[in-house]
Amino acid sequence: MSVIYDKVALIGLGLIAGSMAHAMREGGLAGHITGFARSPETRDTARQIGLCDQVFDSAAEAVAGADLVVLAVPVGAMGDVMAQIAPHLAPGATITDVGSVKQSVIAAVAPHVPPGVHFIPGHPLAGTEHSGPRSGFASLFRNRWWLLTPLPDADADAVARLDRLITAMGAKTDRMEAAHHDLVLAVTSHAPHLIAYTMVGVADHLRRVTDEEVIQYSAAGFRDFTRIAASDPTMWRDVFLHNREATLDILGRFTEELFVLQRAIRMGDGQQLHDYFTRTRAIRRGIIEAGQDTEAPDFGRSPGARPPE
Amino acid sequence: MSVIYDKVALIGLGLIAGSMAHAMREGGLAGHITGFARSPETRDTARQIGLCDQVFDSAAEAVAGADLVVLAVPVGAMGDVMAQIAPHLAPGATITDVGSVKQSVIAAVAPHVPPGVHFIPGHPLAGTEHSGPRSGFASLFRNRWWLLTPLPDADADAVARLDRLITAMGAKTDRMEAAHHDLVLAVTSHAPHLIAYTMVGVADHLRRVTDEEVIQYSAAGFRDFTRIAASDPTMWRDVFLHNREATLDILGRFTEELFVLQRAIRMGDGQQLHDYFTRTRAIRRGIIEAGQDTEAPDFGRSPGARPPE
Repeated sequence: MSVIYDKVALIGLGLIAGSMAHAMREGGLAGHITGFARSPETRDTARQIGLCDQVFDSAAEAVAGADLVVLAVPVGAMGDVMAQIAPHLAPGATITDVGSVKQSVIAAVAPHVPPGVHFIPGHPLAGTEHSGPRSGFASLFRNRWWLLTPLPDADADAVARLDRLITAMGAKTDRMEAAHHDLVLAVTSHAPHLIAYTMVGVADHLRRVTDEEVIQYSAAGFRDFTRIAASDPTMWRDVFLHNREATLDILGRFTEELFVLQRAIRMGDGQQLHDYFTRTRAIRRGIIEAGQDTEAPDFGRSPGARPPE
Repeated sequence: MSVIYDKVALIGLGLIAGSMAHAMREGGLAGHITGFARSPETRDTARQIGLCDQVFDSAAEAVAGADLVVLAVPVGAMGDVMAQIAPHLAPGATITDVGSVKQSVIAAVAPHVPPGVHFIPGHPLAGTEHSGPRSGFASLFRNRWWLLTPLPDADADAVARLDRLITAMGAKTDRMEAAHHDLVLAVTSHAPHLIAYTMVGVADHLRRVTDEEVIQYSAAGFRDFTRIAASDPTMWRDVFLHNREATLDILGRFTEELFVLQRAIRMGDGQQLHDYFTRTRAIRRGIIEAGQDTEAPDFGRSPGARPPE
């Protein structure tokens, strides 16, 4: 591989930016990587582990001379960060972001973009339940989607160059209109996260069941909810506040549907339940066939678990 | 290890019974293993893969002379199966079941248990999203809980012997009152499953988002729901119908709680959301510390994903 950007500035040094740093180094994709994080602790950690070539105490210094700037902060902080760095951007630079919501990020960031600078919004569909500068790893994006939602007047060459970087880090890219992105993600990510948080919260303050029981007997089902519900609280607060309409729309549909199934349980309508569960099983098959998960029996992820022969 | 039961009869040859067969063989825990399944296809498959020493065409033949009989059929079928085998049970035999609901199984099975036969209800908290005679593997129960809900007049020696078998298969045992079991499992397993089924169903008939999009972009969150929602439809239909009260109770609490969070999103109350998500994160920590899951970042389960250093 060869260098795609001479100088990449990472603003925010959490899981995504950290994984980008590892992936760009592994592939030799960036000539020089600078970084900035708001918290002094994060900057210190990043320096200790050598996450970037240089970590600066201000975003302005970090972006100086960069031909790619990556905004990797919570969605609610994107606008402020962009306003801060705008006067310091190099002419012709590309700005991208990695936020989970696109319409509100565009609304917050675009007004601050100086003429001659290319803003190309993006969203890697990759992550773990861990966060912080130590959580990144080079293979995070491998075989994962990275959605780009370029604005109508986007510079085709700038988009193609960013696309090359993303592809070189192992991800697959796709382009999508920002509003549609926000609806699709409300279904596949935002609503599921809120639901998982809710179920874990219910378990937490159910007095007749002890915390210890909830924890000990979490193996089937609940454990996967807690995994989702362990994701970064600030990131997720911002996602819900910034993708409010789509998330509330999907949650409304979810509640309707849940009431239909609750009613089937109450009325003892086994046929309706069985039909429903048979349909949902087919969707799982589609996800495995699309290569978005493996068939290995994950529920049995005890030490030594292995797929059936 | 040494033989704990001379002859074990497995009634129903799905994931749990199959995994028991593998585990008992691996540990040399049963002198002879017989099996029966209602479906001729399942019996044929079990014979082809040599799952048991002998597979019979009737439950009566399978249980003849067995000192342990395991009822491993859907919860709704337990009563009928027990009525069929009751006249053929050896004196002093132990009957156990592996159903996910205990009160209704006890109500259905106990009346048919002949004098001198020991009925000890049980529930292994282990499984995968796969089912059928080919889905079992010996390590399924390793480090997993297996709850026993013996009746007040249970024979202590018979319970201790069953406990030895379960422990020898790698599981940890605990005892619990049947009603409490059903509530705990409604929280940790039954409600989460219904919720996952519901969310997958919502995604399935949302016209503005294509099936392909739902499948392609399922990486963060939704994918884990589809995994849960791929579990056996018949088993789960029976669980909900047979643990109706506790499941509806928990789902009612869940809906209340979800409405509170939806309202916080609608009102833009970021503090409430952040506080909530911070609490749920702590529960995840508890589950990892209790050894019920690993800290490896499962969201990044792309080929080559590895834990952060």
